[in-house]
Amino acid sequence: MTVYDFPVGPYPTRVRIAIAEKKLQAQIQFKMVDLYKGEHKTPEFVAQKNYSGTLPVLELHDGTLIAECTAITQYLDTLNGAPSLTGATPLQQGIIHMMSKRAEIELLDAISVYFHHGTPGLGPSVELYQNQEWGFRQRDKAIRGMHYFDTVLQRQPFIAGAEFSMADITVIGGLVFAAIVKLEIPAECRALLAWYERMKQRESVITQPAFSS
Amino acid sequence: MTVYDFPVGPYPTRVRIAIAEKKLQAQIQFKMVDLYKGEHKTPEFVAQKNYSGTLPVLELHDGTLIAECTAITQYLDTLNGAPSLTGATPLQQGIIHMMSKRAEIELLDAISVYFHHGTPGLGPSVELYQNQEWGFRQRDKAIRGMHYFDTVLQRQPFIAGAEFSMADITVIGGLVFAAIVKLEIPAECRALLAWYERMKQRESVITQPAFSS
Repeated sequence: MTVYDFPVGPYPTRVRIAIAEKKLQAQIQFKMVDLYKGEHKTPEFVAQKNYSGTLPVLELHDGTLIAECTAITQYLDTLNGAPSLTGATPLQQGIIHMMSKRAEIELLDAISVYFHHGTPGLGPSVELYQNQEWGFRQRDKAIRGMHYFDTVLQRQPFIAGAEFSMADITVIGGLVFAAIVKLEIPAECRALLAWYERMKQRESVITQPAFSS
Repeated sequence: MTVYDFPVGPYPTRVRIAIAEKKLQAQIQFKMVDLYKGEHKTPEFVAQKNYSGTLPVLELHDGTLIAECTAITQYLDTLNGAPSLTGATPLQQGIIHMMSKRAEIELLDAISVYFHHGTPGLGPSVELYQNQEWGFRQRDKAIRGMHYFDTVLQRQPFIAGAEFSMADITVIGGLVFAAIVKLEIPAECRALLAWYERMKQRESVITQPAFSS
């Protein structure tokens, strides 16, 4: 299988963590798509790989394409043996999907919008339209999101409950992106900070390019 | 179980279609939350039911809350017997989750942003901040999304392939919202229009309040 990838990208990092958690590295080759050159927005990439023009994308041996981190994680998690990232029971599946989506809406996607609209983003040749005011609103939303996930982690060890899941990976993606745009986790979010320190000790996380500097 | 609901809401309609497809109506009571009165944005609702302040929300008998249509659908679909909306194999699951997410990004969520920012939306007492330019951008994105899903339906009978799935429901939600904001499906999108006519004949769809006028 092939993953269209960009090493420090927060979204590709989510799928690479999932791959490492499932110990599937040996089955996957990574092809670099340079976001700063806009290679994910070319007519060819959009037509042939992913209509939404985003990374990562998983390509199977027969050419089937799966885009979107949640979809790729769902596919990989049930590929062989019991799922360990997306839930084994209906209740776990529901909670994990809710918390992962919430982490996108309230943190990761909000920071992405801030990056692309409230900062120079990928540079003027890629960011052809920017709405700065919207970008700043989303930055503020992401800070509120950090406080929300802090309250979640005050009462349970992981984002979706008692065990590590796809929802933790999504929040990690959000905090990877926060570091890129220099958005600090507020010092009073102690449960979130403590959880993040624990996450950074996981083999699947610490081996990512985003943490190797 | 209880679903916090608003009858003509496009997102609640998605979950009601899923409930009808799974024939779970008898197990669920619906509690109305008046979006036009901003009942989904009150401090109580946000603190007690859904941090994101959106509908629908599913509440289980023990008080467990599941928000987000995809998460609720995932939960309901695997509650008893074989899943029929979210995929039975890893590949189906991956493709369905991808196409449903794509339908959110490129159609339904885009129209929602247009409604809340480019039109009076839920009225001045609920829409406390509007970014009209962003709203119009998202409207245009949604029209492009309609063309994209038209090309998808030119080569296969349903949004995620050979069978009806959660991804079809998400596009239906998008077109329900398009009707509310008076965004017409372009006449040249013949495959999309023909598919929508077929969808509207499904028992689970035609019985929804959005189609009963």
